[in-house]
Amino acid sequence: MAASSSVTAAQALVGRAISGHPSPYPSQPDRLAFGLSSLADRALKSFRLQNRRLQAAPRPRRATVTRAAAVETLEGKAATEALVDKSVNTIRLLAIDGVEKANSGHPGLPMGCAPLGHILYDEIMRYNPKNPYWFNRDRFVLSAGHGCMLQYALLHLAGYDSVKEDDLKAFRQWGSKTPGHPENFETPGIEVTTGPLGQGVANAVGLALAERHLAARFNKPDLEIVDHYTYVIAGDGCQMEGISNEACSLAGHWGLGKLIAFYDDNHISIDGDTKIAFSENVNARFEALGWHTIWVKNGNTGYDAIRAAIKEAKAVKDKPTLIKITTTIGYGSPNKANSHSVHGSALGAKEVEATRKNLGWPYEPFFVPEDVKSHWSHHVPEGAALEAEWNAKFAEYEKKYKEDAAELKRIISGELPTGWEKALPTYTTESPADATRNLSQQCLNALAKVLPGFLGGSADLASSNMTLLKMFGNFQKDTPEERNVRFGVREHGMGAICNGIALHSPGLIPYCATFFVFTDYMRAAIRISALCEAGVIYVMTHDSIGLGEDGPTHQPIEHLISFRAMPNILMLRPADGNETAGAYKVAVLNRKRAAILALSRQKLPQLSGTSVEGVEKGGYIISDNSSGNKPDLIIMSSGSELEIAAKAADELRKEGKTVRVVSLVSWELFDEQTDEYKESVLPAAVAARISIEAGSTLGWEKFVGTKGKAIGIDRFGASAPAGRIYKEFGITAENVIEVARSL
Amino acid sequence: MAASSSVTAAQALVGRAISGHPSPYPSQPDRLAFGLSSLADRALKSFRLQNRRLQAAPRPRRATVTRAAAVETLEGKAATEALVDKSVNTIRLLAIDGVEKANSGHPGLPMGCAPLGHILYDEIMRYNPKNPYWFNRDRFVLSAGHGCMLQYALLHLAGYDSVKEDDLKAFRQWGSKTPGHPENFETPGIEVTTGPLGQGVANAVGLALAERHLAARFNKPDLEIVDHYTYVIAGDGCQMEGISNEACSLAGHWGLGKLIAFYDDNHISIDGDTKIAFSENVNARFEALGWHTIWVKNGNTGYDAIRAAIKEAKAVKDKPTLIKITTTIGYGSPNKANSHSVHGSALGAKEVEATRKNLGWPYEPFFVPEDVKSHWSHHVPEGAALEAEWNAKFAEYEKKYKEDAAELKRIISGELPTGWEKALPTYTTESPADATRNLSQQCLNALAKVLPGFLGGSADLASSNMTLLKMFGNFQKDTPEERNVRFGVREHGMGAICNGIALHSPGLIPYCATFFVFTDYMRAAIRISALCEAGVIYVMTHDSIGLGEDGPTHQPIEHLISFRAMPNILMLRPADGNETAGAYKVAVLNRKRAAILALSRQKLPQLSGTSVEGVEKGGYIISDNSSGNKPDLIIMSSGSELEIAAKAADELRKEGKTVRVVSLVSWELFDEQTDEYKESVLPAAVAARISIEAGSTLGWEKFVGTKGKAIGIDRFGASAPAGRIYKEFGITAENVIEVARSL
Repeated sequence: MAASSSVTAAQALVGRAISGHPSPYPSQPDRLAFGLSSLADRALKSFRLQNRRLQAAPRPRRATVTRAAAVETLEGKAATEALVDKSVNTIRLLAIDGVEKANSGHPGLPMGCAPLGHILYDEIMRYNPKNPYWFNRDRFVLSAGHGCMLQYALLHLAGYDSVKEDDLKAFRQWGSKTPGHPENFETPGIEVTTGPLGQGVANAVGLALAERHLAARFNKPDLEIVDHYTYVIAGDGCQMEGISNEACSLAGHWGLGKLIAFYDDNHISIDGDTKIAFSENVNARFEALGWHTIWVKNGNTGYDAIRAAIKEAKAVKDKPTLIKITTTIGYGSPNKANSHSVHGSALGAKEVEATRKNLGWPYEPFFVPEDVKSHWSHHVPEGAALEAEWNAKFAEYEKKYKEDAAELKRIISGELPTGWEKALPTYTTESPADATRNLSQQCLNALAKVLPGFLGGSADLASSNMTLLKMFGNFQKDTPEERNVRFGVREHGMGAICNGIALHSPGLIPYCATFFVFTDYMRAAIRISALCEAGVIYVMTHDSIGLGEDGPTHQPIEHLISFRAMPNILMLRPADGNETAGAYKVAVLNRKRAAILALSRQKLPQLSGTSVEGVEKGGYIISDNSSGNKPDLIIMSSGSELEIAAKAADELRKEGKTVRVVSLVSWELFDEQTDEYKESVLPAAVAARISIEAGSTLGWEKFVGTKGKAIGIDRFGASAPAGRIYKEFGITAENVIEVARSL
Repeated sequence: MAASSSVTAAQALVGRAISGHPSPYPSQPDRLAFGLSSLADRALKSFRLQNRRLQAAPRPRRATVTRAAAVETLEGKAATEALVDKSVNTIRLLAIDGVEKANSGHPGLPMGCAPLGHILYDEIMRYNPKNPYWFNRDRFVLSAGHGCMLQYALLHLAGYDSVKEDDLKAFRQWGSKTPGHPENFETPGIEVTTGPLGQGVANAVGLALAERHLAARFNKPDLEIVDHYTYVIAGDGCQMEGISNEACSLAGHWGLGKLIAFYDDNHISIDGDTKIAFSENVNARFEALGWHTIWVKNGNTGYDAIRAAIKEAKAVKDKPTLIKITTTIGYGSPNKANSHSVHGSALGAKEVEATRKNLGWPYEPFFVPEDVKSHWSHHVPEGAALEAEWNAKFAEYEKKYKEDAAELKRIISGELPTGWEKALPTYTTESPADATRNLSQQCLNALAKVLPGFLGGSADLASSNMTLLKMFGNFQKDTPEERNVRFGVREHGMGAICNGIALHSPGLIPYCATFFVFTDYMRAAIRISALCEAGVIYVMTHDSIGLGEDGPTHQPIEHLISFRAMPNILMLRPADGNETAGAYKVAVLNRKRAAILALSRQKLPQLSGTSVEGVEKGGYIISDNSSGNKPDLIIMSSGSELEIAAKAADELRKEGKTVRVVSLVSWELFDEQTDEYKESVLPAAVAARISIEAGSTLGWEKFVGTKGKAIGIDRFGASAPAGRIYKEFGITAENVIEVARSL
C-alpha cells in the first residue's frame, strides 16, 4: 500500500467503510475521519467541560453509589434513580406504543428488559450515535430479536438518526427502518439480524471473537487500539436452541472475556410458562461450558444489582460471563404481566391505558419527557468525543506502527489490496488432476497471504475439507492472533459465528467448512448470511455421491437446487482448478452476498476451456465445434460432471454432431448477464439440450426446456465406491450419449 | 374394531407390522404370533431348562461377580472374563477386517467401544435376533454412526440373519446390508438411521419417550406389557452438536429414566485431540440438564465398572443417565491407537498385522473363534424365549384388558382403524373462510380421536401453529400418558425425536410443528425422516409472506422448492379446508414417507372445486370453462395463492377467455400419476401457462414451460402487513391478468 498522509487515507477508508453499509447519512468526512477533526475536537472539549461541571456539582448519595457501581461508564452520565425510573418507563412506553400502533409485535420483553436496556445504553456502552459504524464501538446484539422495540427505543433515546419518532410510529410497516425483527441492513445501529432464536447469541460470539483476534494482532503495550465489549440479550428461546449451546461452548473454550451475555429469565415463552418444556439449570450448564455466571434476582427494579453484575463480569477477563436476570415479562401491565399474552401481541387500548396508569405515565403515545430527553442528550457529544479520542489514538498508532496500521485500516474499511486476485493459482490442462477440495485449499492459502482479514476453519473436518491455512496456527484462548478457527462438530454455531465475524468489520472475510450435506445443520445461519449481507464463504466439500462409501446420509442430492433458490446466495460449483480460483475470486469480491462453494472429494482433470472469466459470468461455453451459434446439441453441467459432459461431447463429435459444452458454475451469476450474452451461450433456437449433474434434476427445466432432458439423481444416494454409484445412477458419458441420440 | 379371536388377529397384525418394514425373512406366523406358538413354547422350555442347568453347575468366582453386577441380565449368560476378552477382541477384529476389506470406514470407535458393545449385546439387552421387530425389545442406537462396524459385528455374533459373514465382507459395497452408516431401512436390527452426528441421541430420546408413553397408557399394576430400555452410544461429535443438547434437555425435563446414554469419551475427533475445540465438562452439563451422570474411567478393560454403571443407571428411575466411558480410540492398534489416524481410515495391512499380534489374534480375517461363537449362540433361543414369554403375557393382557389390547395392537402393527379417514372434516364453499393452520387443527383433533398412536406438538408455537389436541393434556414427567408434547424452542431436537417415535412402532404417528421458515433449523432431521422412512407429519404454518409483519427472517421463500427436491418427502400446500383434510389423509396413509404441510397464517376462503380426491392426485383441475382439453390459458397455483388464481380466472373468463385453474398441491403426487392423467390436467398443446405462488419461481419452469410465466418471489420478504407485501410483490390477481394478456 502506498504511503499517504494519515488523515487523507483514513478519510478515504472510512468513506468506503460507510459506503459498504449503505447509510442514509450525508457523508461528513470531517466528522468521520480518524484524525481529530474540528467538530470532534469541539465535542471532546465540551464533553470534558461538562464532566468537570458535573463533578463539581453536589450530587445525591444515591447517584454516588450508582457511579461507583457502574464500572467504566463515563463520569457524569449517571442519572438519579428517579430519572432512571422515568427513563426506564419511557423505554417501556415507547415499546408499548410502537406495538400498539402497529397492532403487531412483542411488548413483553422490552417492558421486562427496559432497566437492563437503560443501563447498557445509558451507562455502560461506548458508542457514537452519529456514526453507528465507528470501529471501536461496543457491540450490542438482541438475540431475542422479537423484542426489537426495546432496541429501537434505545437507539431513539441515544440519538441515532436511524430511529426518529416517525420511525417508531412506522414500526412493522412497509419501507420503515423499524422492521418486525432487528435487521442490520435496514437500520444503522443494529449490528446483526436476529429473530430466528439463538442466532444472535452465536453472532455475538463471532463479534467477540473478531475483537479478541484483532486486539491480539494489533494492540501494542502502549496502544490498545482494539478494545470493546460485546453484549447480548438472550431469552429462554435462545437458551433452548441448540445453536446457542454450540456457540457458547466455543466461547467458553476460547475464553472470550469481553463477551457478556444476559439471559432474560422471565419464565414465559409463547406456549406459556417455560416450566412446561424447560427445567434445566441454565447457569450450571454455562459453568460446565466454561463461563462465569451471575444471577441478578431482581431485574425489574434492581438497577444496582445489574450494575454490579456487569462490573463483576468485566472483572473476569479469561471467561465470558452469563448474567441471568430474572425479570417479569410485560412488567408494568397490571393484567398481562407475567403471562404469555404479553409476549407477542399488542396490549390493546384498555390495557395500555391501565399500564400507563399503573406506571404513573400521563403522557401521550411516543412522548419522551423533557428531563429524560435532556439526560440522554449527552450521548451525541460523548459519542463524538469517544470516536475523536480513538481517532487521535489511531493517529498515534499509525505514526508508530505504520504497517500494522495499514493492515488494520484495510480490515476496518474492507478495501481489498490492489491486485489481490493475482495471488490466486492458475492451471493448464497439463496441471495434475485433483479434487476441487484440494484446489480450494491452494486458493485459501493463496488468499490468506494477501487478505489481512481472511480467517476461518472447519467443523472438525479440516483435514477432509482441506481448509487449514498452513502459515498460521490455531485461533485458541492463548493464541487468538492466529487464523485457523477450530469450530468442532458445530456447523450451526459455526455459520452464525462467521456471520458475526463478517459483520464486525467490512474487511474481515470469514470462511467455514463442512461436508455439503451438512449445510442442513446450518441452513438457518446460511440464510441469515444471505439476508444480512454477510459475505461469508462456505467451503462445502464432498458435494455429491462422488464421496462414495459414506452413503446416503452423507450424499447431497437436493442441496444445489435448495441454495440456488435461496435469495442473495451465490451457489458455485467449480469443475477444476481454474473454476475453483474463479469461484474464490467471485466469493471474495461479493462482500455483501454469501457464497457457497460445492467441491469434490474425488479427483477431477483440469479441463480445456475453463476460466476465471467464465466463472464470473456464471455460465459459459467451454467447448464447441459448431458455427453460427447453432450447435446440434448443448450439454450443460457443473462441477465434477463437467468432465463427463466434455467426454460425451467428444464422442458425439466423432459421430459428426456439432456439440456445445456449457459450464453452468453459478446459475445466479448467469441470470445476471445480459440477454445477448445468455442467447450467445444458450440460443433459444437450439432445443436439443441435455444437462448432467449429480444432484436433483428439479430446476434444470429452466435450462433444458420442455424438449431437453435433465440427467441427475432424484432419489437418495447409496453406500458404495463412487464409481459404482455413478454407473448405477447413470451419471455417465454413455448415458449422455444415449440420451443425445434419443433427442 | 370387530371382535375376533385374539391369536388370529394378532397373527394378522404382526404380519402387517413386519410387512411395514420390508423383511428378508419368510413369514412365520407361528413364530411371530402374540400367542404362545409351539416353536416359541419349545424355545421357552429349552431356555428354562438351560437356566436350571447353568444354575446347578459350579461356577468360577469371577463369573459370580459378573452375574451379580449385571442387573436384569438373563441367568447363565455371563462368560468368564477370558471369554469376554476373546469376544471383545472378536468384535474389534471383525470391525478391523470389515474396514480393511472395504478400504474405507471407521475402525477406531468399534475398537474402543468393543467392551461396551459386548456387555450391552451379550449381557444386558433383551432382544430376539430372529425377530428384530419384536415390540418389547430393548432399543439400541449408535449415534456415532460412523462406528457401525461395531453394531454389524454385534448383530452378527448375536445371530441376526441380516448380518452374515458375507455381509460383513460386503461392508460399504453396492447393495450390501452393511452400508457405511447404520440404516434401519437396509438392515433389520438397526433401529434408526445415523451418521449425521447428534441425530441418534435425539432418536433415542424419541424411542424412550415412546416407551414411557405407551407404558403409561397400557401397563397395568399386574401386567407390565411395555417395558424396555433405550441405549445409545454417542461420541464427542454428538456431544458438540446442538441437537443433542436440545434433545437431552427434554429427556431430563421428561425424566426418561429408561434412557441410558453412553458417551464414548475418547478425546479424539477427526481434527485430532478434542481439546482443540471441546473443553467443556460434559457430565456437569448433563447434570444441569437434569440427568444422572456416571464416569467409567477405564472403558477399555474395566468390564465390571461398565456393568456397575449400567446397574446404577437402571436404579435411577426418574432421570435419564449419562455414562461417560473413557476409552482409547483404536484400542489394540500399537501405532495408531489414541490418534485421529484410526478414526476414519482403514488401518492398513501392516498395522492390521501389528494389531493382530498385539491382541494375540492368530485367526484369519472375519473368523469367529468357536468358543466365542458357542457362547453367543444362546441369544437365539433366549431371544425366542423372551418373545414367547412376552407373547404369553400379552395373551393374558388381552384377556383381561380387551380394549387396551386392541388399541396397543394397532400401535404395534400400524394397522389403521377401518374408516378412520371418515373422521376428517369436510367443507363446502359456504363454510367460513379460515386459515389453513386452523383447519389443520380441526384435522389434528379429528385424527387424534380415531388414531390411537397419534401424538405430537410444537416447538413452543402451539398457539400459533394451532396444534393442541384438545382432548388430551401435556405429555410430562408426571403425565406421560398424555399426547400433547411440548418441545420448547428446539426444532432440530423435535424432528429427530419424532423420527425416534415413528420408528418405535409402526402405529405411532408423530406430528410436529413450527413456522415453515424454521424447517431451516431442523432440516437435517427432516432429511433423515425421508431417508429412514419415518412417516412424521410436519405441520408447518406461517408458510409465506402472508405472515406479514414478522418480516423476512420469518418468511419462507425458497422452502417449498427445497423440499420438493428432497427425495421421499411429500410437500403438501393445501389451499382450503378440503385440501387440508386431503393433505392429512395422504400424510397419514404414507407411513414410510414424511409429509410436510405448509399452512397459512392468514384466512382463506373455501374454494369451489377443491377436494380430498384431488389432493390425492397431487394436481387437479378446480375449475375450467373450456372444452376438449384445450383451454386458452392454464393458471396453476398452490395453497394461499389458489384463491388469487381462481379470482384471476373469473376475470379473464368474463373477457371471453377459456381458462383452467389447476391446484398443484403436491408436485410429488402429481408426478406419480399416469401420463394420461397428467395430460388431462396439463395438456402439452397448451403453452399459455401461468403459475402463481408466494415463493421462489425456481422449479416452476417444469410446469409453465418455456413459453409460460411463473409469478413468484425471488427475493427476501419484508416486514409489513401481509396485504401490502402481496401487492408490492405482485402476488395479485391483477398481475396474473396482466401477464395473461401478455402471453
